[in-house]
Amino acid sequence: MEHRVRAKELLNRVTSPQEAASLVEDGMSLGIGTGDSIACPKTFFTALAQQAKGRLRVKLFTGGPVPHEVDGLMVEADAYERRFGQFSNAWLRDAANERRFPLLDTRTGTLPHQVRDGRFGRIDIALIEAAAITEAGYIVPTTSLLDAPSYAVLAEKVIVEINPQVPPEIEGIHDVYIPEVAPHRKPIPLEKPGDRIGTPYIPVNPERIAAIIESSLPDNPPPRAATDQNSQKIAHHLLEFFSNEVKRGRLPPNLLPLQFGVGAIPDAFAAELAKSSFTDIEFFTGTFGDGGLDLIDAGKAKALSTASLYLSQEGFQRLYRDLPRYKRYIVIRPVVLADCPELVARVGLIAMNSGIEVDIYGHVNSTHIQGSRIVSGIGGSCDFMWNAFLSVVLLSSTARRGAISCIVPMVTHVDHPEHAVDVIVTEQGLADLRGLAPVERARTIIANCAHPDYKPLLSQYLEEAINSRGGHEPHMLEKAFSFHLRFAETGSMKP
Amino acid sequence: MEHRVRAKELLNRVTSPQEAASLVEDGMSLGIGTGDSIACPKTFFTALAQQAKGRLRVKLFTGGPVPHEVDGLMVEADAYERRFGQFSNAWLRDAANERRFPLLDTRTGTLPHQVRDGRFGRIDIALIEAAAITEAGYIVPTTSLLDAPSYAVLAEKVIVEINPQVPPEIEGIHDVYIPEVAPHRKPIPLEKPGDRIGTPYIPVNPERIAAIIESSLPDNPPPRAATDQNSQKIAHHLLEFFSNEVKRGRLPPNLLPLQFGVGAIPDAFAAELAKSSFTDIEFFTGTFGDGGLDLIDAGKAKALSTASLYLSQEGFQRLYRDLPRYKRYIVIRPVVLADCPELVARVGLIAMNSGIEVDIYGHVNSTHIQGSRIVSGIGGSCDFMWNAFLSVVLLSSTARRGAISCIVPMVTHVDHPEHAVDVIVTEQGLADLRGLAPVERARTIIANCAHPDYKPLLSQYLEEAINSRGGHEPHMLEKAFSFHLRFAETGSMKP
Repeated sequence: MEHRVRAKELLNRVTSPQEAASLVEDGMSLGIGTGDSIACPKTFFTALAQQAKGRLRVKLFTGGPVPHEVDGLMVEADAYERRFGQFSNAWLRDAANERRFPLLDTRTGTLPHQVRDGRFGRIDIALIEAAAITEAGYIVPTTSLLDAPSYAVLAEKVIVEINPQVPPEIEGIHDVYIPEVAPHRKPIPLEKPGDRIGTPYIPVNPERIAAIIESSLPDNPPPRAATDQNSQKIAHHLLEFFSNEVKRGRLPPNLLPLQFGVGAIPDAFAAELAKSSFTDIEFFTGTFGDGGLDLIDAGKAKALSTASLYLSQEGFQRLYRDLPRYKRYIVIRPVVLADCPELVARVGLIAMNSGIEVDIYGHVNSTHIQGSRIVSGIGGSCDFMWNAFLSVVLLSSTARRGAISCIVPMVTHVDHPEHAVDVIVTEQGLADLRGLAPVERARTIIANCAHPDYKPLLSQYLEEAINSRGGHEPHMLEKAFSFHLRFAETGSMKP
Repeated sequence: MEHRVRAKELLNRVTSPQEAASLVEDGMSLGIGTGDSIACPKTFFTALAQQAKGRLRVKLFTGGPVPHEVDGLMVEADAYERRFGQFSNAWLRDAANERRFPLLDTRTGTLPHQVRDGRFGRIDIALIEAAAITEAGYIVPTTSLLDAPSYAVLAEKVIVEINPQVPPEIEGIHDVYIPEVAPHRKPIPLEKPGDRIGTPYIPVNPERIAAIIESSLPDNPPPRAATDQNSQKIAHHLLEFFSNEVKRGRLPPNLLPLQFGVGAIPDAFAAELAKSSFTDIEFFTGTFGDGGLDLIDAGKAKALSTASLYLSQEGFQRLYRDLPRYKRYIVIRPVVLADCPELVARVGLIAMNSGIEVDIYGHVNSTHIQGSRIVSGIGGSCDFMWNAFLSVVLLSSTARRGAISCIVPMVTHVDHPEHAVDVIVTEQGLADLRGLAPVERARTIIANCAHPDYKPLLSQYLEEAINSRGGHEPHMLEKAFSFHLRFAETGSMKP
């Protein structure tokens, strides 16, 4: 710890996870920014969950994918009074769907601003995983920033969990800049994804660092997502589209800064991109996976701006082995910048996000199954999609081995309305919706994106709605959810 | 015209409306920014519609409320090949619902950027209503800017319609600044609603001014919207809420910059505000009505930033009588700034927008009746609501003398998802949704905002959905539109 805690006067704050956890009182608000297993103060939360059981409940605020060591254990300990922000853990998801405590799914880029404006009360303790504390007492985070800086500067107390598994050479990868609260906000002086406008540490008043603990749990990143044929087809359609846009002079030769998530489709897209003739590509995204490293290694990436890294075990090893080189390309930022509408619009983002289902008019459901069950949070997708130069939605045309059509007459929950969507891509093809009126969009989506098994059903719905109901965006309300109701009844959307 | 066209070398471009209209060819794209009857090149379009009938069709791009002299006559002449952007005219609305030509409802703040990036092809002619042309040949618009500057700098040719009914003293009210296209965009150097960062004219290369005509049609602004009891109650709830937020230290004493539209509710709100103890209020809005002048006269307004003025006949007379004084408060900007997410977030907007219906979870339909028939465009509301410090939706709890509940189980069209809405106000009361999970929101909206006639029905739906379906946001898809289907069948949502 002496090597990691370089502010010697803070060494007396080094304590056990149990001691640190005992600072938490019933009803407190805690803030964390995590990047799943790595970049999460998991040793602290393991201790807290043990102490909390039957004794206290907290409000937790977070903008990242929270690992089982936090959400799983805290849910098991019944230790959430209220949970704000992003999630990825299955136990948390089930608890939210059973409404065992209120889950407030919030936009990742907005939550820290809202916390700062006081609408949710104060933050009592911020928990930060760190690689080091500098001589001046500032915090050098690990492989994610997300909303950690916002909570760290706001919280009454800060607890730092030093993770010795992350090499100290991570220092310098971060760029911490937190915009002022309105109405005192200034223009954010970032123009290109690779720009650095802040500090390489979180500038917390060291007096507020209440405890420092050492991480004793192994980092446990996920395996690399396996690719599949549908993802490859989607990636192929997309690359072809971009090439054509460049040929038509509607995109620059090196494209525009790209945003995508993690998983099979983004990885397949990164693989296609690595093989393509595009170079000097910039990324301005909330997170990225191993595909990002692939693109650096392939000499394709000019700069990758992100709020967190979501790498596989193998990916982190690659990163750590060659940190000085990767640091020349990667900038880790607070999520209030990564997901910031001002910056998304300024850099001219090409946003690529997934969905559970899209409807014939282009509305997207990315969070709720059958309109009711939440499966993932909204994240930063809405801020990317509304403000992008080009907003692309990527999904397979079917799910559950064809029993579900992901193109439906009407989505059962709208996260991204028609006005936030330019292009839809499935393995069947690509629908460029720009400049099309609703019925034109519907015909294009059905023709290009729907699975052949469902095309006749979708066309039938559309034409019947046009003829029987009419209007600018014709719908038959009594049949709008017929696909979903059939699935609920028979286990398949097919008649 | 000699007084108005101060660039003497341009006087030879002065011509008749018929001559000017003959510059338009079949298939051309025209761009206008209008503020309804005033600020619209209506003499030009009256001539064009006459010439167009059976001879040519055009694409029209606009971000403003277009008067009958444009949309009505052009629809009658069957002269639209395709129509992009905002609308307010009933003939246009009916034509769109009959799909007589494709209407692309677009976000007002985004359309000019999209036109500039080339996705819709080039703009052939921009039509600008002007008060004058300066010595250098630049255009001084009248009472609106909206997207006019974007099209003027982009179009191959510009046709200027001088409106002698607008006093030349309007000059100086405008602040024309057009952000660069991504990826060359810079931070927009505007920090406060009253800031001036551009030029008081549209800087068009005078060589591209192809024709100058004189407006010969009378300006015909609408009568001032009558107030009503519901609007007054809504305004009262809202003021009470703001006062409490100030008391709790969550809003500054002079509030934050306000955005609202035009109509009975905004006028009632302005009247309440004029009587309140708030002072130094700033406005950052897309348009404003007579209420804005009332607030200046009441000494309440510090600055009003807008993309257009939507005043009554009496309002315009007031403005014209006292232009030098009003110009100290009013700044008219391009809509790409007025609706700009970057600026909305920076100034910390309190956005107040209307809706046709909201559902129990807070999703808002502001455009389509029964999911199908468009009644108004999306405008800038989504950009205001997503990026505001506080996003408020204002509507009556019922319509059609109680036969329609504007609070429904599920809206039939989503323009503004739950994540873009903080507060809902009806004449029944106010629902502060901040920090609430979906089912908590539903109970609050039903309790505070729904009409007593519909509360039991809504509660019954909610509780049945919770018990029979469960989930994070419980819905029964087979009953989600039961209110709407009952109305379609019986003429009332009541059973």
